[in-house]
Parts: sequence; structure tokens; C-alpha cells
Amino acid sequence: MSEVYDVEEFWKFKMKVGLIREAQRIPRTKKLLKLVVDFGDETRTVVAGIGDQYEAEDFIGKKMIFVTNLKPKKIAGVESQAMLIVAEDKEGKVYLITLSEEVPVGVKVW
Amino acid sequence: MSEVYDVEEFWKFKMKVGLIREAQRIPRTKKLLKLVVDFGDETRTVVAGIGDQYEAEDFIGKKMIFVTNLKPKKIAGVESQAMLIVAEDKEGKVYLITLSEEVPVGVKVW
Repeated sequence: MSEVYDVEEFWKFKMKVGLIREAQRIPRTKKLLKLVVDFGDETRTVVAGIGDQYEAEDFIGKKMIFVTNLKPKKIAGVESQAMLIVAEDKEGKVYLITLSEEVPVGVKVW
Repeated sequence: MSEVYDVEEFWKFKMKVGLIREAQRIPRTKKLLKLVVDFGDETRTVVAGIGDQYEAEDFIGKKMIFVTNLKPKKIAGVESQAMLIVAEDKEGKVYLITLSEEVPVGVKVW
């Protein structure tokens, strides 16, 4: 078995359910999408690099999982303030993880 | 903003899509469920503490997200070899995160 970690170390990362209010392609990029994500107590801008496989419309109104305590990163001039969690196979095909509508916005994922 | 982390640190944790083949209550416990989870290349036993809110039948045949490189932990005599990821509100109500059937077993979540 490769290296294993204490669960407490995993729990320092905050994952939350966010509702995607807006989504649009970032101009002059091949696969960057800018999402505006509602976490209940705050709204954040998130850049996701899967615009080669999905359209902006695939995200709007959906609830997905985000990591919210990573260092913000500027990508193509846009500050990404959280990271979208997706599933991805070995060939790079991405599957969106969309939560049920009944899940409240902002709840923790752990 | 509270403490933030490098994304590389988050990526050391392996999250994967697992297909729950079997689920049953662990006898003489109030809320422990034992899941047998297929990750494609291996099968693991996982203990989940949400049997007060869900029945074993809610899990069987479903694809959910697991962290697979945490230290194994013995719970009520059963070794848990991965951790089920769920959403939970402030009152402790748990929401299962069930992936679409089209998502292949064993793919990474990140």
C-alpha cells in the first residue's frame, strides 16, 4: 500500500456544496470557464478548466462540490477562489458531480 | 479568511468512485453500516456511521465517493479501509452523494 494519512489531515480541507449562479467562457482561452458560485454565506468566482468537454449551460443552476480553503489562484486574469470537484477517468474524460436539489447550499462535504 | 492551503497538498488524498456491492448493519451498534465497495482494481470494506439516517438498502448498487488513502481504522471490530464522502448540514442531517450511473467505477475524484 502506498502512503496513507490521518483523517484529521484530510479534514483540514473545507469542501462545500455550492450553487452555480452564473457560468461563462473566459474569452481567448480554449477550455476555461468562469463560474459564479453561491455558498449561502458568500459568493465566489471559480475558474474550471473543463470547457473543452462541457458548455457553460451545463453548470448554471446546478449544485456541485468545491474546495473552499485553497490558495486563490489567478488564471487567465480571473482569480479562482475555490476548486470544482469532478470525476475523471484515465483518458481525461470528466464527469460532473451534481448533487440532488434537496441538498442545501453551503453544507459541508466530508 | 482562515488558513488556506496549496492545492498540491489536497491532491495527496486519493478520492475515488466506488460501487457499493453489499451493505449491512453492524450488529450491536446504533448507526454503523458495513459497506463492501468495488473500486474496479480492488474491493474494500468501509464502515460508515450514518445508519441512524439511512438503511443498508440505500447504498447497494450505488456509486459514491470514497477517500482511499487514509489509515485503516478498526470500528466495532470491522476494519474500515476507506471513508465515505457525504454532505452534512449544521444540524447533522446527512445527504448522500450518488454519482450518475455512467461514471465508471474506480475513476478518480479531484
